[in-house]
Amino acid sequence: MLTTNPFDDDKLHEECGIFGIWGAEKAASFVALGLHALQHRGQEAAGITSFDGAHFHSHRAMGHVAGNFDRDDVIARLPGRTAIGHVRYSTTGETALRNVQPLFAELSDCGFAVAHNGNISNAMKLRRTLSRRGSIFQSTSDTEVIIHLVATSTQSTPLDRLIDALKQVEGAYSLLVLTEEGLIACRDPLGIRPLVMGKLGEATIFASETVAFDVIGATFIRDIEPGELVVVNDTGIRSFRPFEAAKPRPCIFEHVYFSRPDSVVDGTSVYEVRKNIGAELAREAPVEADIVVPVPDSGVPAALGFSQASGIPFELGIIRSHYVGRTFIQPSQEVRNLGVKLKHNANSALIAGKRVVLIDDSIVRGTTSLKIVQMMRDAGAREVHFRIASPPTKHSCFYGVDTPERAKLLAAQMSVEQMRDYINADSLAFISIDGLYRALGESRDSLQPQRCDACFTGEYPTTLTDAEESASGAALSLVASR
Amino acid sequence: MLTTNPFDDDKLHEECGIFGIWGAEKAASFVALGLHALQHRGQEAAGITSFDGAHFHSHRAMGHVAGNFDRDDVIARLPGRTAIGHVRYSTTGETALRNVQPLFAELSDCGFAVAHNGNISNAMKLRRTLSRRGSIFQSTSDTEVIIHLVATSTQSTPLDRLIDALKQVEGAYSLLVLTEEGLIACRDPLGIRPLVMGKLGEATIFASETVAFDVIGATFIRDIEPGELVVVNDTGIRSFRPFEAAKPRPCIFEHVYFSRPDSVVDGTSVYEVRKNIGAELAREAPVEADIVVPVPDSGVPAALGFSQASGIPFELGIIRSHYVGRTFIQPSQEVRNLGVKLKHNANSALIAGKRVVLIDDSIVRGTTSLKIVQMMRDAGAREVHFRIASPPTKHSCFYGVDTPERAKLLAAQMSVEQMRDYINADSLAFISIDGLYRALGESRDSLQPQRCDACFTGEYPTTLTDAEESASGAALSLVASR
Amino acid sequence: MLTTNPFDDDKLHEECGIFGIWGAEKAASFVALGLHALQHRGQEAAGITSFDGAHFHSHRAMGHVAGNFDRDDVIARLPGRTAIGHVRYSTTGETALRNVQPLFAELSDCGFAVAHNGNISNAMKLRRTLSRRGSIFQSTSDTEVIIHLVATSTQSTPLDRLIDALKQVEGAYSLLVLTEEGLIACRDPLGIRPLVMGKLGEATIFASETVAFDVIGATFIRDIEPGELVVVNDTGIRSFRPFEAAKPRPCIFEHVYFSRPDSVVDGTSVYEVRKNIGAELAREAPVEADIVVPVPDSGVPAALGFSQASGIPFELGIIRSHYVGRTFIQPSQEVRNLGVKLKHNANSALIAGKRVVLIDDSIVRGTTSLKIVQMMRDAGAREVHFRIASPPTKHSCFYGVDTPERAKLLAAQMSVEQMRDYINADSLAFISIDGLYRALGESRDSLQPQRCDACFTGEYPTTLTDAEESASGAALSLVASR
Amino acid sequence: MLTTNPFDDDKLHEECGIFGIWGAEKAASFVALGLHALQHRGQEAAGITSFDGAHFHSHRAMGHVAGNFDRDDVIARLPGRTAIGHVRYSTTGETALRNVQPLFAELSDCGFAVAHNGNISNAMKLRRTLSRRGSIFQSTSDTEVIIHLVATSTQSTPLDRLIDALKQVEGAYSLLVLTEEGLIACRDPLGIRPLVMGKLGEATIFASETVAFDVIGATFIRDIEPGELVVVNDTGIRSFRPFEAAKPRPCIFEHVYFSRPDSVVDGTSVYEVRKNIGAELAREAPVEADIVVPVPDSGVPAALGFSQASGIPFELGIIRSHYVGRTFIQPSQEVRNLGVKLKHNANSALIAGKRVVLIDDSIVRGTTSLKIVQMMRDAGAREVHFRIASPPTKHSCFYGVDTPERAKLLAAQMSVEQMRDYINADSLAFISIDGLYRALGESRDSLQPQRCDACFTGEYPTTLTDAEESASGAALSLVASR
Repeated sequence: MLTTNPFDDDKLHEECGIFGIWGAEKAASFVALGLHALQHRGQEAAGITSFDGAHFHSHRAMGHVAGNFDRDDVIARLPGRTAIGHVRYSTTGETALRNVQPLFAELSDCGFAVAHNGNISNAMKLRRTLSRRGSIFQSTSDTEVIIHLVATSTQSTPLDRLIDALKQVEGAYSLLVLTEEGLIACRDPLGIRPLVMGKLGEATIFASETVAFDVIGATFIRDIEPGELVVVNDTGIRSFRPFEAAKPRPCIFEHVYFSRPDSVVDGTSVYEVRKNIGAELAREAPVEADIVVPVPDSGVPAALGFSQASGIPFELGIIRSHYVGRTFIQPSQEVRNLGVKLKHNANSALIAGKRVVLIDDSIVRGTTSLKIVQMMRDAGAREVHFRIASPPTKHSCFYGVDTPERAKLLAAQMSVEQMRDYINADSLAFISIDGLYRALGESRDSLQPQRCDACFTGEYPTTLTDAEESASGAALSLVASR
Repeated sequence: MLTTNPFDDDKLHEECGIFGIWGAEKAASFVALGLHALQHRGQEAAGITSFDGAHFHSHRAMGHVAGNFDRDDVIARLPGRTAIGHVRYSTTGETALRNVQPLFAELSDCGFAVAHNGNISNAMKLRRTLSRRGSIFQSTSDTEVIIHLVATSTQSTPLDRLIDALKQVEGAYSLLVLTEEGLIACRDPLGIRPLVMGKLGEATIFASETVAFDVIGATFIRDIEPGELVVVNDTGIRSFRPFEAAKPRPCIFEHVYFSRPDSVVDGTSVYEVRKNIGAELAREAPVEADIVVPVPDSGVPAALGFSQASGIPFELGIIRSHYVGRTFIQPSQEVRNLGVKLKHNANSALIAGKRVVLIDDSIVRGTTSLKIVQMMRDAGAREVHFRIASPPTKHSCFYGVDTPERAKLLAAQMSVEQMRDYINADSLAFISIDGLYRALGESRDSLQPQRCDACFTGEYPTTLTDAEESASGAALSLVASR
Repeated sequence: MLTTNPFDDDKLHEECGIFGIWGAEKAASFVALGLHALQHRGQEAAGITSFDGAHFHSHRAMGHVAGNFDRDDVIARLPGRTAIGHVRYSTTGETALRNVQPLFAELSDCGFAVAHNGNISNAMKLRRTLSRRGSIFQSTSDTEVIIHLVATSTQSTPLDRLIDALKQVEGAYSLLVLTEEGLIACRDPLGIRPLVMGKLGEATIFASETVAFDVIGATFIRDIEPGELVVVNDTGIRSFRPFEAAKPRPCIFEHVYFSRPDSVVDGTSVYEVRKNIGAELAREAPVEADIVVPVPDSGVPAALGFSQASGIPFELGIIRSHYVGRTFIQPSQEVRNLGVKLKHNANSALIAGKRVVLIDDSIVRGTTSLKIVQMMRDAGAREVHFRIASPPTKHSCFYGVDTPERAKLLAAQMSVEQMRDYINADSLAFISIDGLYRALGESRDSLQPQRCDACFTGEYPTTLTDAEESASGAALSLVASR
Repeated sequence: MLTTNPFDDDKLHEECGIFGIWGAEKAASFVALGLHALQHRGQEAAGITSFDGAHFHSHRAMGHVAGNFDRDDVIARLPGRTAIGHVRYSTTGETALRNVQPLFAELSDCGFAVAHNGNISNAMKLRRTLSRRGSIFQSTSDTEVIIHLVATSTQSTPLDRLIDALKQVEGAYSLLVLTEEGLIACRDPLGIRPLVMGKLGEATIFASETVAFDVIGATFIRDIEPGELVVVNDTGIRSFRPFEAAKPRPCIFEHVYFSRPDSVVDGTSVYEVRKNIGAELAREAPVEADIVVPVPDSGVPAALGFSQASGIPFELGIIRSHYVGRTFIQPSQEVRNLGVKLKHNANSALIAGKRVVLIDDSIVRGTTSLKIVQMMRDAGAREVHFRIASPPTKHSCFYGVDTPERAKLLAAQMSVEQMRDYINADSLAFISIDGLYRALGESRDSLQPQRCDACFTGEYPTTLTDAEESASGAALSLVASR
């Protein structure tokens, strides 16, 4: 069986994208468009919850936004001038649909819908405590812990109950919460995951990335700040900062791979940063070659940067198929390396006889890199040099990014030279961590880095309660008997 | 309602791709992979017919190859060492599935399956004659005419009956025919549509394009020549040339847009030709500008050629979404031009303040061009110059390409200056017909052109019986009362 | 695996029901209701073709009428004041849907839709001849032969071409044919299968049984006579008798089992005839017993007749489930005879200690009878006497009734005493062939019987060309290489 | 739009059936068969939860048992030697599937699955209290209240926590509860809804009715007694009686309509009781007539009893279709009363000129009765006398039976004479409440009736907290903002 996945298996994946709007007719139709533009952050399930002034309405589905939320009848069942939505990477098993967000609960005195990008790193501990007191969990999602903390809080208003709940959680969260009293957007004290605020006419909008504003013609206003809660309702917009101040640590990988190149993250063009990384890489690890070839599509901006800085021509040496599918029957042993050919094909007429610099954004397991190098050699490349637009990925992420366990991260197991040998390249180089910060226009503060770069450095900005308990013997699974 | 289509509506489309194999275990699984690689030629329906030595087996379905032909159970129901397959662009209505190929008929003494790329330009006239004699048509496909001509032929062998039939048809056809006695590949006397032959171990393979060989690791042998029939069975490969000799006229648009850039067509790299067109265009219609921006994805090679020839940097100023869908509810009038933004988004941080050269492969209706120029202006472009990698498309195709009626072809209605004004560009230029031939390394023979370039010049290489009858009053429709 | 089928597997089955209407708005909606009432004649597929004065419209589907033809959108796509419909028993394989009727063909000068109840007994021979001349068959249905004979007829009007075709076929057919020129109803010269004519306001209606008139409140007018063609259009109703006169032989099994008890067939109430059979059986084969128990539901009228004639009380000793399904996993060997219990359950409180007379309409394979007797014994019956409301079924039907091959007909293999022993009853008796005719108010003419009773007597009223050729070595299958 | 429903709309409906088994391989396959036999108690959704010694497994689906639980793959995903199942009448809206039982919750120290037949009459009050303490409800089902009471109970064992919970609820419940420690069956202190215990080899079985034992060949042991909890696990069977003793009040309507005629309820054959009711009715309300005709199928046993007691012949004057569907397009105004004809048709040949006694089990809204009488008159009946095998249904049920609101109960609005006039019968009579008890072999104790007969008498055996609060102004809906 040969596999081609819509997402490249051999990448880290952002697990979620969120979008919310207050104050527009047919709010759900804007959310559908916004989620469509955020699917690179999670394309396997989507949901929208709207509030029409009296009732909450939800629709959640496995699959793409188009096909589920481009239908008149679905949008018509989501009436109201405010709505929030969520796309997610992956969820499996019988409880799959239950884990699709927004999660909604009818609390004793209010409805409460939440869409969450991030990961609560003490969710299992909190869940055990809540369960012992009689709370019944319906999903395996860490997000549900927040709802039960709100439901059992002794504070009086929904906002105070939410703050009470968030003070008990640790980890990464950008949240959109919809209640009868308004739409609440908030970002964890370190601002690990992104969240931006925009405006379209009178309506206020929140999204994971600015591309979701472009698709509906909305204007970017500002980032939600780390530790900030913004409450929007018909009386206006109010901002709260209930948490202790902390130095922000936004995720650096948003610039390397997660965000779309046409997004502006933390005030910086993603495309520009990626080109800078390519240029920096050309300076840090130059090579004599005939053509610069991106591994499509994510390697393209860095390859352009590398080409412009080095003067080596940029060429499309690998063609990517528009058509994807899960598995094809493998006809025979003769057909080797077919997985990558279904998705990628060498432009042999171009490659034959050339010295090639391949540019990719990262190496995770290394399986794709291995096949791509071989494909270049089969196409007649004289030399194959691999340049990577990020430092070696050596550590798992506990903040809402789908990472393989450490044992499967190539860079956690091998030196750069061993990796070069493994993927069979003539040379291999990664950008340095300092080079990466330079591409962002910063000089890395090695005591208190300006970003979360734990996947490269192992320097996690929060405690990791569940992971530590798990390492010391406690059960990790949220679902004991399912 | 806003629409994004998997295919760009504002392009000409090849209507079919075909693939066949003789002499491999699990032949259908190779066909599935080959068709997967040919879906840019037709992605809306697919079918495979196999022959296991005793019985024919068929599966045909609306939709992509993946999802229909990547399943074990489907392939298992298509046993045998030979099989042919077909992907097609579009077919509608109750008879939709009946029009999906391969078509199969149980003739009196043999089974007969056919996959056809092209269009029979006297199909309606032949159909009327056959119908009057008692033949009953089940589809609206011109291909079915071939089968009835074979069924009613008085020749004795299947091959002779096929030749007898083909001598009565006019137009464009690359055919794969599967009978108990072997696999037959053939190409019309002018070779309008492409067809190549390859080899994988002992197996012989035919396909519309060489990329279908790459996906299974097969080797390209040669083009099927115009007017040639190749018969493969266990006794070997034989070639026949039953038609009168004629000067070949292969379709030039295969190089402009239809074929994949990594294919080699008529011995020439499609990618290289497209870069040549871009370079030629830079010479024919130079412009002072800051950046060269391709309309993704088809404009990329020509844009690289233009950039390299002009020295103006190549940049990704338009980002294309990986996610497509049919229709989204339009939330409000405020949201203008949303159709194109769902698919394309301006990289505003890059575009702002720049003089931009946009490169696209062709202009058909002009609707997309209009939106793209506006998108560049909204993103802050100082000037927008449009360069097109083909001559103005002024005439319909009657040889198997989906063209709008002439009245909807922008170039059939307007001069270049009127078109520039309509799409609101600062300048607009198309490559000349001679420049296009130069990019192919040829000098156009204006008396007997080396290619079919009728869509640009109106010089059709065959008579067009049905079209002429229709123009003179006879009914055009194949389906009078459905 | 345990099976319960919507239809009892252990019965003969009528294979088709047909319904047509001329001259009513929304004709297709009447056809849908009529077909709904005819589903006991064929419940596994259904189709309707309508004609709106300009175009023919068809919808055909596997499954029940409800679920396919009770939907607004389906009926809306079948416009017109005339329409015909068909329900059928069973059709399998890839060609399944192609065999669902009405069949429709676009002939050279007219559209031609046909719905057929019956079976052409020289279809294979005709098919071979037509195929040799170049006709291409799309289904495996014998009905398609009629269409090709019409298509290749040299007669001029559709009616004359139909008559020309029917003169070449042998066997049983009640047909409804829809053309641009009118609706044609016809019945084969022996009138083997039924066909009745009715009226609702100005509209003329045809159906297999009168129950289809009841459901729409229409009035029964008369039977279509054997060998008659009735043509209805806006100019009126005309009757034709193009065939040689013959003594009619309508199917006697319609009275035994096929027709609904509330239908009137050949001027006789089916319910009354079945009660007469039960009474006759009580006289021919009396028994001392405590209760008369019908095998539901088909045995009920005969059981009432038996009870009234014998004075033994009628009781519901077997309860039939309203819920049916195809297969359930068999949990273990302990669970014996479960197939019949899913559908039938003994009313044990009633049965215990009683001498029971079971009444069923027929015995085909005997598998159900065997289980039912055992079920009675398990429930504590003291004696079990089986009485059958038809003579032993010893011969296959070639006229449109689904019969097992002779080797599987219990009565073809065993004497009555052997059958009694096999099903383990204390006594077993069948009504005599003469008793059956008496129940119909007739005295059987043993030289020229008034009915087709070949399934009991082997006296087939027509030649059986295909069956005879097959017996003498020619291939039986219509589909050689599928 | 005309409607035929699988269930007759004009009946009261039992809302649920339950089935459980402990100690058999492939327990779920037995549950599937048991539920199949209980679908007359609820056919619109079904679910099974199994426990394999380590994990709980659930599958729940809208629709019939066959089609959902007759599939190998579904049963294979429900492993284990113990399982419980549930069929239910109806559930609607977005939360539909959440309301399908068994409900399952992962409590802090155990899994807890519950299947419930009945209705908790103080569910809304309990729900408000639990919600205020932080419990989050996922369904609108009253059954979920039980689970939250168990989850928040301070008792230590699952059994003690269940008893603690049940002591707080009022109303009707037959429950099956599956935990890691065993299978618990229990019945409310008044035993309003039925629950029986049986045995198959070593396995212990519980079901709503004995017919579910018949289908798998299991043996009936005894009724679970009112107020009894039975716990089964591998250590044996234990019985508990934690509630205050009370005089039982089992539902009398089980005998009138809910239970299948082949079930034995409270030690009495349902079929026998229904025949007794018919005979009693013949004595209480005799009539001169020619034939006794049951309204199929529920009126059949009482009609047999009436016929045997009166000597008037029993005849099938109304034929019921095996085929049901939701809605058909109504072709025109001419087609009157079509709804009932789709399901029922008069056997006109029999009815014409006769004086008819119609027997039905009950009259709820009267809509069907009205149509049936008219159908008899249209068929030519000379007189139509209606006899009803239950007293007038005047009061709603709050114990798990789907009753229309009182205003729609015909008998709550009209006298018997007014009803006779409304349905246009020549005479109308209901059995008396005392006659009904006589048919059961009892003399009604008017102070403390032996049965719950509140639907006829209004004498409810429990307080009705929610209904009373609702009448006094509190909100009735369980779902304020959905």
